[in-house]
Amino acid sequence: MQKITTAEEANNFLNTFDTFLFDCDGVLWEGNRVLDGVRETLSLLRQQGKRILFVTNNSTKSRSMYLKKLQSMNIDATVDEIFGSAYATAYYVKNILNFPSDKRVYAFGDKGLKEELEAENINVCGIGEDTEPIDFDTLDTIKPDYSIGAVILGFDIQLNYRKYAKAFTYVHSNPDCKLIATNEDSTYPIHGTVYPGTGAIISPVLTALGRRPIVMGKPEKPMIDCIVDKYHLDKNRTCMVGDRLNTDILFGINGGLKTLLVLTGISKEQEIMDQEQPIKPDYYANALGDLYFLSQ
Amino acid sequence: MQKITTAEEANNFLNTFDTFLFDCDGVLWEGNRVLDGVRETLSLLRQQGKRILFVTNNSTKSRSMYLKKLQSMNIDATVDEIFGSAYATAYYVKNILNFPSDKRVYAFGDKGLKEELEAENINVCGIGEDTEPIDFDTLDTIKPDYSIGAVILGFDIQLNYRKYAKAFTYVHSNPDCKLIATNEDSTYPIHGTVYPGTGAIISPVLTALGRRPIVMGKPEKPMIDCIVDKYHLDKNRTCMVGDRLNTDILFGINGGLKTLLVLTGISKEQEIMDQEQPIKPDYYANALGDLYFLSQ
Repeated sequence: MQKITTAEEANNFLNTFDTFLFDCDGVLWEGNRVLDGVRETLSLLRQQGKRILFVTNNSTKSRSMYLKKLQSMNIDATVDEIFGSAYATAYYVKNILNFPSDKRVYAFGDKGLKEELEAENINVCGIGEDTEPIDFDTLDTIKPDYSIGAVILGFDIQLNYRKYAKAFTYVHSNPDCKLIATNEDSTYPIHGTVYPGTGAIISPVLTALGRRPIVMGKPEKPMIDCIVDKYHLDKNRTCMVGDRLNTDILFGINGGLKTLLVLTGISKEQEIMDQEQPIKPDYYANALGDLYFLSQ
Repeated sequence: MQKITTAEEANNFLNTFDTFLFDCDGVLWEGNRVLDGVRETLSLLRQQGKRILFVTNNSTKSRSMYLKKLQSMNIDATVDEIFGSAYATAYYVKNILNFPSDKRVYAFGDKGLKEELEAENINVCGIGEDTEPIDFDTLDTIKPDYSIGAVILGFDIQLNYRKYAKAFTYVHSNPDCKLIATNEDSTYPIHGTVYPGTGAIISPVLTALGRRPIVMGKPEKPMIDCIVDKYHLDKNRTCMVGDRLNTDILFGINGGLKTLLVLTGISKEQEIMDQEQPIKPDYYANALGDLYFLSQ
């Protein structure tokens, strides 16, 4: 574990990697404010020919929707540089699971997830449907459907019991039906506070089934597998940059990458100094912007 | 552990107790069919002056609603003989928590729960309200409310994200706000199959909070505490009768009662014979009706 505090250390760090994966909130920005030196650091990396990827667990946004968010923060990016859990899920279903073309996906989620699944030519149902309430007398209209080859669980603010009962029934009745979660963040930060997150609102299906899903998002490994597969990355020359030990840094470690912790977000220096802390980054710095400031 | 197979064993068993608590499904009936000898056994107990209580985890029904169900099965009962998790919750909030009269309860549940809470003069909100959907832009209309002294989680087929976010926010923002679940059955049996149960659909609130609730229903202890408190029962002369080791029998054991397992439901004889089975009833019988048939 090495702290980056000098020009030499910053330059050595930059020379060690070809690709940088960035968590966004707490690394690039805080609330609506882009952190000092972040734009300059990203420009420096581009000048040096590095590959930049923005990695997010948010499953409600497609890559093009997330691009608009980056652009609204005046951060340059292209769709191809964005890897969200919605896209990762679509990529995984298409390219890793080799999903059969005669099967459908039942998705519990938002339109960003639908957009990414449809872009991969996956036959998806559930999103934007099943909005009408249900009662005890009509519950038996929900029946097994063996055309459903996978149930995908993401963030769905339009959730209801009908959707839970369908997602449950399709997996419960069919041992061949895959069960995939976009991510398991238990809370969703917005408006300066938190509300129940994806990991919370998908738990009814998992609790009723008594079964764990394949989880795409940080800190689980599948999203890194997708990223490495898509861009043919050399893991030894790829660094995951984040502000949380138990999501971002663990994600990098689980995926076999090197890691950089920045101290502008959740995890503090004393946490990584704690001898009982099992998750340690390879590098850490006070802020991402230090890479630019130190190397000038 | 003693199996009841003779007239003498049946009579000795009956003479040992003054009060019998009955689980219903799998003990009294199966689907819509009352099991053989059940009505006769209940009559015999009444003739002998025994107290009979029907105990159910179903939180959607008030006692008067559950009485109608018993009557529809031609099983004699009075409201006072019924103890469901909705009533147990109301009793617990009123008599064990001594809930302050200037505070309100936010309930996530069905009208049976509302009926029981209001019958105990508890100021309840949430049920029948909050049915309109919510979106990301209006999430910040959900704010802490320090007039809410307890959040109660039961089965609510009209669930939505607005209700989850409210229940979460009231507890998350206020360490003094109590958190109570009517029961934690992970599945709900109906129409010959199962759908997500109370334990499943309340899990978003618990997962987001990272906190356990006080659980009223079987196999937890609070419902027995309420029953013993209300009827001033002698635990040594009270027997819990059920068909499931991990709910009914564990409930009796947790509450310090004696237990009878009947083999007409979920748990089979080989399970209780298994040396590694940690939960053993004091008595078991092939069927509740045997108490009548053997003693004739």
